[in-house]
Amino acid sequence: MRATVMFGAGDVRIETIPDARLIEPTDALVTIRRACICGSDLWPYKKMAHGETGRPMGHEAIGVVEAVGADVRRVRRGDAVIVPFAYSDGSCVFCRQGLQTSCIDGGFFGNGAVGGAQAEALRVPQADGTLFVLPDGVDDALMPSLLTLSDVMGTGHHAAVTAGVGPGKAVAVIGDGAVGLCGVLAARRLGAEQIIILGRHADRIALAREFGATYVVSERGEGAVERVRELTGGFGVHSVLECVGLEQSMWTALSIARPGGAVGRVGVPQDEAMPASRPAFYKNVTVGGGPAPVRAYIAELLPDVLSGRIEPGRVFDRAVGLDGVPDGYRAMNEREAIKVLVEV
Amino acid sequence: MRATVMFGAGDVRIETIPDARLIEPTDALVTIRRACICGSDLWPYKKMAHGETGRPMGHEAIGVVEAVGADVRRVRRGDAVIVPFAYSDGSCVFCRQGLQTSCIDGGFFGNGAVGGAQAEALRVPQADGTLFVLPDGVDDALMPSLLTLSDVMGTGHHAAVTAGVGPGKAVAVIGDGAVGLCGVLAARRLGAEQIIILGRHADRIALAREFGATYVVSERGEGAVERVRELTGGFGVHSVLECVGLEQSMWTALSIARPGGAVGRVGVPQDEAMPASRPAFYKNVTVGGGPAPVRAYIAELLPDVLSGRIEPGRVFDRAVGLDGVPDGYRAMNEREAIKVLVEV
Repeated sequence: MRATVMFGAGDVRIETIPDARLIEPTDALVTIRRACICGSDLWPYKKMAHGETGRPMGHEAIGVVEAVGADVRRVRRGDAVIVPFAYSDGSCVFCRQGLQTSCIDGGFFGNGAVGGAQAEALRVPQADGTLFVLPDGVDDALMPSLLTLSDVMGTGHHAAVTAGVGPGKAVAVIGDGAVGLCGVLAARRLGAEQIIILGRHADRIALAREFGATYVVSERGEGAVERVRELTGGFGVHSVLECVGLEQSMWTALSIARPGGAVGRVGVPQDEAMPASRPAFYKNVTVGGGPAPVRAYIAELLPDVLSGRIEPGRVFDRAVGLDGVPDGYRAMNEREAIKVLVEV
Repeated sequence: MRATVMFGAGDVRIETIPDARLIEPTDALVTIRRACICGSDLWPYKKMAHGETGRPMGHEAIGVVEAVGADVRRVRRGDAVIVPFAYSDGSCVFCRQGLQTSCIDGGFFGNGAVGGAQAEALRVPQADGTLFVLPDGVDDALMPSLLTLSDVMGTGHHAAVTAGVGPGKAVAVIGDGAVGLCGVLAARRLGAEQIIILGRHADRIALAREFGATYVVSERGEGAVERVRELTGGFGVHSVLECVGLEQSMWTALSIARPGGAVGRVGVPQDEAMPASRPAFYKNVTVGGGPAPVRAYIAELLPDVLSGRIEPGRVFDRAVGLDGVPDGYRAMNEREAIKVLVEV
C-alpha cells in the first residue's frame, strides 16, 4: 500500500510499504478516507535527523473498518469511524477518568510498530476503545469538521477546558494555527465573553474572527502583554490557551494570565524547562494541559458538528490526494496553508 | 519599640525602632502577643546582601487591637485578632474570589513602608479586610494552633486544595518543614487515603506520622521517585504538595505525580524556570499554587482548631521571647527547631 514516510527534515515521500494488517486480536484494520497534516508534524519536518528507515506519518483520520480481530466486540466491518490521534483501551484507570492519552495499553500512531494515518490503510490497536463509530448517513460535507474531532478540535477544546474557560470569562488564545483557531471556537462554545487571539497572519485572523474572536493582538513579547492588559482592565485574562509550545509563547501565556487564572497548554513544549515559573507562582496561576484526550471529547462535540453549530472543518484551506502530501507539508511549513486535508 | 531587623544573611538583631502607629485611616495598630519565625524567613537569612538599613522581619501574628483609623468599621480596639501574612482590603475583585494575596490594595508585611510582626507592635493596613477577629474567651492553650492560621496551616491547606486532595486520593507531601507538616494535616483533613511524606529528619517525620502520614520516603532524587511509584501501584500520586521551592523538589513533585494529577506548590520558587515541563505536559499534570490566601481559609479551618480536631500548633517545638529571636533563626536554619514561637 502507499503511505507517507518522513526520512528527515523537509524530506517527506509517498512510499510503497507492506500492507497494514491485523496483528493483535484487539486490532481493527481501517481503510483511510480522509486524513490530514498536523501542526505537530511540522516539528520533525523542521528538525528530524535524516535516516534510511523513515517514520510513517499521520495520526488523524476518518475511515471505514475493513476487518476486526477476534476480540473486537463493539466495532464492526463497514463502520465509518473517527480515528483519534492516540489509541486507548477505553477500560484502564486513566481511560475511565477520561484521560485516554495516558492509557496503560495505549500509544500513538506513527511510532514504532504502529503505522501512520497519511496512508491508504491503518492498523488500529485497541479498536473497541479507540474508534468512534459515526452514525449512519452523515452528510459528506461534514467530513472535514468530523475529521477535526480526531485531533485539532478536541485539542482546542482541551486547552479551553484545562484553562477553565466558562461563561463571562476573558480568554486569550496564543497561536493562530488550526489548534488555536479551534481553541477560539471552543472558547466561544463554552461561553467566553472576551476572546483575544494572539496571531499575525491575515487569513488565520480573519477565520479567528468568524470563529468568535473579539480582539486581535498582533504584537509580540512585551508589546503583546501590554496590549492584552489594556484590553482587560489592566488585570490580564482568566484563561489562556497556549497552542504553540515555544518558550516565548509560554512566557507570554504566563504574563497575560490574571491572578488566579489558568493556562491550558496543548502546544507540544519544545523546551525542557518552563519559563516565568516565579511570576506564575506569585499570581497563583495554574498551568495544565497536555496531549488532549480527544476520544473523551468526541461524544460532547459531535452534536454541535452534526448540527452545524460549530464548523471546525473550516481550518482546512487546501485539499490534496496522497501524492500531494509532500507539497502539503511544504505549504503548511511555509504558512501558505493553515491545514491540509488529505483525500485518500 | 523593640523589633526584629535583619541586616544581611545570618545577621538578625533586636533593635529599638520608632513606635508603630496609625498612618492611613484604614489602619489598625496591633500589639503583638505571639509571632513566629517562618521557613520563608530563612531564604534571606541564607542569602540577603548586607546593608545598613535592615529589613523588619515577621509576618505571622496574634495580637490585640490597640487603636483603629477613622475608616475602620468592623475591627475594634480590644479585639483579639489573627494577622494573616498578607494584608488585603477584602473587597476588590481578587479578594471577592478568595485570592487575598493578589489584593489590588494589598501587600506583605516587612516590605517597604509596612513593618514586621516579630516586634512589640505592628501597623496593619486595610484592617477591616485583613484582620480576623477571634471569638471571646479562647483557651490560651490553643494560641499556637491559632497562630498557624496566619500562615503555615493555611499554606499547607492551600497546597492541598490546589493539588486537588480529596477522599480516596493518594497524596505526597514534599518537605518536612512546618508547612509540609501542616500539608499532611490538611491532606488528612480533606480525606486523603494515602499520605506519603518525603523528608528525612527524625523529629519531623515522627510528627508527620502523628499528623496522618501513612508512609515516609527518605530517599532523594530518582530513589524517591522509584519508592513513591512502588507505593502507588506504579502510577504515582494524584496530588503532590510541593512545600520546599527548590528545582530538585519541583522535579521530584512532577516526577511522582500520576497522569492527570496535580501539584500544589507553596514553597517559594528559588528559580526562574520550572524543571520537567515536558514530562508534566505529557502526563497532563496540572501545576497550581502560590502565596496562600490564608485570610480566605481561616473561617473554614478555625472550627477544627477550636474543637481540637487538628493541632497544627504542634509544629512549634521551641518558644522564645523577643530577645531569643536571633537564636531562633539560627536554630531553625540549622534544623535544630522545626518552628520557633515568639512570645512577645
